[in-house]
Amino acid sequence: MATVSSEPEEVVRVSELLETSYDVNLLHIQSNLFDPVQHGLKPEFRLTNFTDLKGVQPPDINGFPNVHHVHANAPVGTGNLTSASLSPIGIGLDSCLIPLRHLGLYLVQTTDFFYPLVDDPYMMGKIAAANVLSDLYAMGVTECDNVLMILASSQKFTAEERDVVMPLIIQGFRDCAVEAGTSINGGQTVINPWVTIGGTASSIVRAEEIIPPDGAQPGDVLILTKPLGTQIAVNAHQWLTTNPEKAAKVRTILTDEEVKQAYLRAMHIMARLNRNAAKLMHVHGAHAATDITGFGLMGHAENLARNQKCAVMFIIQNMPVIAKMGQVARMFPGFGFLQGRSAETSGGLLVCMPRNKAAGFIADYKRLEGHPAWIIGSVERGDRNAKIIDKVRIIDVPSHDTADKLW
Amino acid sequence: MATVSSEPEEVVRVSELLETSYDVNLLHIQSNLFDPVQHGLKPEFRLTNFTDLKGVQPPDINGFPNVHHVHANAPVGTGNLTSASLSPIGIGLDSCLIPLRHLGLYLVQTTDFFYPLVDDPYMMGKIAAANVLSDLYAMGVTECDNVLMILASSQKFTAEERDVVMPLIIQGFRDCAVEAGTSINGGQTVINPWVTIGGTASSIVRAEEIIPPDGAQPGDVLILTKPLGTQIAVNAHQWLTTNPEKAAKVRTILTDEEVKQAYLRAMHIMARLNRNAAKLMHVHGAHAATDITGFGLMGHAENLARNQKCAVMFIIQNMPVIAKMGQVARMFPGFGFLQGRSAETSGGLLVCMPRNKAAGFIADYKRLEGHPAWIIGSVERGDRNAKIIDKVRIIDVPSHDTADKLW
Repeated sequence: MATVSSEPEEVVRVSELLETSYDVNLLHIQSNLFDPVQHGLKPEFRLTNFTDLKGVQPPDINGFPNVHHVHANAPVGTGNLTSASLSPIGIGLDSCLIPLRHLGLYLVQTTDFFYPLVDDPYMMGKIAAANVLSDLYAMGVTECDNVLMILASSQKFTAEERDVVMPLIIQGFRDCAVEAGTSINGGQTVINPWVTIGGTASSIVRAEEIIPPDGAQPGDVLILTKPLGTQIAVNAHQWLTTNPEKAAKVRTILTDEEVKQAYLRAMHIMARLNRNAAKLMHVHGAHAATDITGFGLMGHAENLARNQKCAVMFIIQNMPVIAKMGQVARMFPGFGFLQGRSAETSGGLLVCMPRNKAAGFIADYKRLEGHPAWIIGSVERGDRNAKIIDKVRIIDVPSHDTADKLW
Repeated sequence: MATVSSEPEEVVRVSELLETSYDVNLLHIQSNLFDPVQHGLKPEFRLTNFTDLKGVQPPDINGFPNVHHVHANAPVGTGNLTSASLSPIGIGLDSCLIPLRHLGLYLVQTTDFFYPLVDDPYMMGKIAAANVLSDLYAMGVTECDNVLMILASSQKFTAEERDVVMPLIIQGFRDCAVEAGTSINGGQTVINPWVTIGGTASSIVRAEEIIPPDGAQPGDVLILTKPLGTQIAVNAHQWLTTNPEKAAKVRTILTDEEVKQAYLRAMHIMARLNRNAAKLMHVHGAHAATDITGFGLMGHAENLARNQKCAVMFIIQNMPVIAKMGQVARMFPGFGFLQGRSAETSGGLLVCMPRNKAAGFIADYKRLEGHPAWIIGSVERGDRNAKIIDKVRIIDVPSHDTADKLW
């Protein structure tokens, strides 16, 4: 990875401005861990035991060369492209974009599902819904017309566990859909060894509702709307009870309470919708965006850069991260966090927008969302790739210790 | 279940007419079983070993009271109902129907996925695609605008097995989508203990493209567009290698070759699209339809009857079944076949239509599809329920032994 040494002055200025104020935002988030006993389950019940995959996982698509081959070669849509302004988009980015038979309309659609990565069933449902909807938001689509729910209960659940856990997952999924102004009509429920939750999000839109992910311009800045580090926080928390060796290492720098706080923050971050970010992309003239999920910041930045019409390069100078998870990342280089390779689930949007619009976007975002966004880099002329500068700046979120407010 | 003794004369006449001719249809279907060795796999490789659920399974939704509760209570759609002719439809029937923000348009959408029920990966892919598309066809929707593919490879596959099997499943799924005039844009691929295949089918339509499943009239007939018995054929074939006791019982009435033929027919039936049936529903003025899947003929007939605007009763007099599977059904009453409870996968459409249109529908269907459809019953005034007559007539399909043609 090449490095870029000059850090644009303006980037620092705007992000510093924010850093001084964002910890005043109130958080009305769950401040306690899920307690199985309160729900009549055994104290040792852990939702994350109902999959063999632990924590936030990078996507495993190795060994499926033919999967993407099939997607990429499939003819796109059944109708004719009736508007010259948008090209069909296949699986490469967040959602597919299908020109419809009905003049000027497009179907924007995505599906995503996964296994338990947190132990709180309600939060797991919310995260799954926020995650699938995020693929629409990354295209600037703010209205979802329908959600289908994909659900599997575990064959290993006792009847009691199933009757407690599955309704909570469904409730979380549904509450998040309602919060997004959409609803769940249809779905499929099966029995599986591993608990599964996810869905399909669909929107039928006019061209002007979409911000195609290919319009980045040299001189744009890169904005990120959620902090990174969900994988690190979730895994570190899991190690406390499952991996004594790694837990001992974590405890050399963090208290258990600090790990728990990071985990609660991660859950809250993953459960937040990217809808306000999508709305503000329109208000402030964003040029392109993607959401940060399984491939990590760099994986998605590279993917977005590759898709640009202009020959640009994304330069990343700042990495906002859940407080203290930067330290854990340095201790466990296997996450690849400093290289931008640590997986995220339901991460923020990475938005390319004109430099002179960024401060307005960030101010409006904070007002609407109650949370900060950060300028994390810049768009320059280049070979449609992405880079992290050598001495990337890690921004702890929140920056101050707050006992009663998470940030 | 009440019984009805009178068998309308016309029903018999039309179905007899067909019975004398349908065996002349040529079949270009796979006439051999999947041979793992030909694909470089061990002879004992069986795709159906990559799930614990064996054969065609009835849906397991017991113990999920809250799932349907949630679906049923979800607000429907985000837009206003702009056409008075159609009510939104939730999860009760085959697809959801969402009025869109764009005047006069509706989103018709469905998702379905399952585990391997046959050992041929390519055919498994075709069956999964035909199955999910069928939910659109049941509503008279003939054009699918997009398919998302839902796929899980088994963590228990060797790399070699995965690289042979997954591309075949994908190819089958894709070929079926292309045959349906649609395409696959998007999807999700994961690792799971059990192999999973299915998808989402979406169509954006004007009201006139939909045949709402609530218009059955007293005096209508019931037409079925595929023979029943897929569960029996698939399970009987599986018993030959996995259940010596049941296999011995089957062998008292059938040769292994006959079981194999029934299994090949079942695969072919499940892989056939219901698209021609949907097209002809429009041509011949069908009043309502559903597709026959996991709840069996009666489960779906009851569900459809419950949904009717008119107070009607569905009376079933005939049950076309894959040749010789009626005999197996009598030997294993646990299938509940004679009560219409045997599960089907990707079964035919059950169509309500005016009696005087039925012969035209059936003739056109045979010409387009190369396979017969049957009048299996009638619609009378009643309490929105369905019944099978006491001495229901089992129609073997095909009716003649044909060594070189399957039917």
